[in-house]
Amino acid sequence: MTKVYLDNAASTPILPEVKEAMLPFLGEIYGNPQSLHDWGDAARMAVDEAREKVAGLIGAEAEEIIFTSGGTESNNLAVKGLALAQQTKGKHIVVSAIEHFSVLHSAKTLEKWGFEVTEVPVDKYGVVNPEDVKKSIRKDTVLVSVMHANGEIGAVEPIKEIAKITKEMKIPFHTDAVAAAGTIPVNVGELGVDALSLAASQFYGPKGAGALWVRKGVRLIPLLDGGIQEDGRRGGTENVPGIIGLGKAAEIAVKQMQSRIKLLTPLRDLLLKELPSKIEHVVVTGHPQNRLPGHASFCVEFIEGEAMLMLLNSKGIAVSSGSACTSKALKASHVLLAIGLSHELAQGSLLCTLGVDTTREDINYVLETMPPVVDRLRRMSPVYDKYLKTGKGGAHAGI
Amino acid sequence: MTKVYLDNAASTPILPEVKEAMLPFLGEIYGNPQSLHDWGDAARMAVDEAREKVAGLIGAEAEEIIFTSGGTESNNLAVKGLALAQQTKGKHIVVSAIEHFSVLHSAKTLEKWGFEVTEVPVDKYGVVNPEDVKKSIRKDTVLVSVMHANGEIGAVEPIKEIAKITKEMKIPFHTDAVAAAGTIPVNVGELGVDALSLAASQFYGPKGAGALWVRKGVRLIPLLDGGIQEDGRRGGTENVPGIIGLGKAAEIAVKQMQSRIKLLTPLRDLLLKELPSKIEHVVVTGHPQNRLPGHASFCVEFIEGEAMLMLLNSKGIAVSSGSACTSKALKASHVLLAIGLSHELAQGSLLCTLGVDTTREDINYVLETMPPVVDRLRRMSPVYDKYLKTGKGGAHAGI
Repeated sequence: MTKVYLDNAASTPILPEVKEAMLPFLGEIYGNPQSLHDWGDAARMAVDEAREKVAGLIGAEAEEIIFTSGGTESNNLAVKGLALAQQTKGKHIVVSAIEHFSVLHSAKTLEKWGFEVTEVPVDKYGVVNPEDVKKSIRKDTVLVSVMHANGEIGAVEPIKEIAKITKEMKIPFHTDAVAAAGTIPVNVGELGVDALSLAASQFYGPKGAGALWVRKGVRLIPLLDGGIQEDGRRGGTENVPGIIGLGKAAEIAVKQMQSRIKLLTPLRDLLLKELPSKIEHVVVTGHPQNRLPGHASFCVEFIEGEAMLMLLNSKGIAVSSGSACTSKALKASHVLLAIGLSHELAQGSLLCTLGVDTTREDINYVLETMPPVVDRLRRMSPVYDKYLKTGKGGAHAGI
Repeated sequence: MTKVYLDNAASTPILPEVKEAMLPFLGEIYGNPQSLHDWGDAARMAVDEAREKVAGLIGAEAEEIIFTSGGTESNNLAVKGLALAQQTKGKHIVVSAIEHFSVLHSAKTLEKWGFEVTEVPVDKYGVVNPEDVKKSIRKDTVLVSVMHANGEIGAVEPIKEIAKITKEMKIPFHTDAVAAAGTIPVNVGELGVDALSLAASQFYGPKGAGALWVRKGVRLIPLLDGGIQEDGRRGGTENVPGIIGLGKAAEIAVKQMQSRIKLLTPLRDLLLKELPSKIEHVVVTGHPQNRLPGHASFCVEFIEGEAMLMLLNSKGIAVSSGSACTSKALKASHVLLAIGLSHELAQGSLLCTLGVDTTREDINYVLETMPPVVDRLRRMSPVYDKYLKTGKGGAHAGI
């Protein structure tokens, strides 16, 4: 059977070169990087090299990189660690309404600790208005956290513009770049942010490896107390194979970024254009152009996203109906609600995220397979039946 | 040159079977375990299987296992997560004086949040007296955390006896079993504890993978907020290759534990007996018998541990002078101070931790190599010179 994986936002495959780079660290190089003998040196030198490569991906200094267990830890460390470090100055933080749960739930934890949180809205494309950030800033605001790009609707946020405001107002600005870093150019100097999260599994590196970049001089309270690793900012023996994989994936991303963007953008655009033209009552979510290169997301009216996902899976196609982190929660996505979709319509969410292995044939297969799948699901839908008979009950009015 | 690795407490090598088990998850099985398609299923089933294996290692139920990024995260999650979940009942916790920094520094963080911490002392062998734990418990005590075995001096603690007390007094009891689990039999039912930390890199699994076991019904506040992973107790995409490696290492540990103990114990005893007899002014730290099977630790008077470590490294021998997590801190170990050593003597700490690859020849090589190394270092020591001339300045009086 044809197999088409269009769920790269949930996890990318590991590149063969990345795996190759990791192998010695699952074998002969097993020392603890903190050990003061040759075994430790071999591991430490490799970790240092990986740190340079990750810094290189985002235009940072190596010593500003804190290795973590992934995007979620990076976001927890950033939001809690930066806010707690500043809490004598104030207890108010600003986040966007479409942040990943690792940011939003960290903010909720801060609320339990006496912080106040302002959620900045987004427009119908999922884009934050920098002016809204500006308005939400108070005298006691100690952190702004707005994501670089959204994994569910592909929206790319005006980070540079927000950073101008936070810089002027001298408030630390963290951006969750988990969906962006390694995929589109991300340069911390150009962006003007103070902290940035990234994760290897979003750009063909291993799961379990991520990083938080924190600008030199910005204070941070550690989340994982313990040893002296990561310059005292993150305890715990380094995940050496994971870090090496992250480093290698970052190195390759730098080299291949432009060619990947060139490959993915037209395939994505084909999907964005053809799917709504081949199937009635399908609309694109997020912005039609200003989005991550491999990211196509839709709302398919009169169906349940889960059911569509299952049926497509039976045809060899992997897609998603939202963030993998909430896939089983069966709640309407907070991101789709934030861009103004109704609960009903948000149920028909479809997320196709392309990767470096995606081909034109893959897209064609999806475009052939989808219409009968949707048709079959709709034929079982009483709401669709009613719509056909009365012309009422269509949810698109909401978009 | 002969190469002898006796620093398994810092990190064990990964077994070839463990690496083998991990490889598919760095290759063809790359789905996100939370994804609802075949790619996700393949990853999820493997993670579930690993969960069973880790539970099997400690006699627990699979659903009680929370996968983490390692021992430090497990200890942070346990100490902070259990204490915070109970803080309406009281804000006092009890730890031993020789806990790993991931426990002690988590306790310090709790102090900043209004908790009080009592440190229970240890005897000259590094063993906690359960009666001291009992005495330290107050009406507002909400957590006791005492490690199962100490990585620096090999001491095995009377966990069962402490658990009897905490159970009677209805106080959650966490044990850091990072140095014990996978090395000696650890059964949560027999021990009677409520939470237990373990790490793969201590028993021939990969770095970056650990687990916290929490008894069903015991409340825990998550440390990493985010998605629905680990039953809502630990957000973040699962480190699938790491988890698979942890599971395989656990499975093998169950099978090989007794044979490993039989292999390691006599080699350890040889080192414990011969080193002090071959070199003057060397004493064993920790208990002569009641200790981890591959664990030999000493104090070598009139030398600096770091210098000895370097010189031994140049002869192809990897040893340590304390915990790898603090190797570069150059402070006297809190564990050695807690067993009554002077700062001066604690500087001469020597830690030889054997592993499944250790041979009789390795031990013989160390026993041959050590005396001239120590002799050379002492010849440069003004304190030793003074001692030879006057008979004064020996630090052993402290032991």
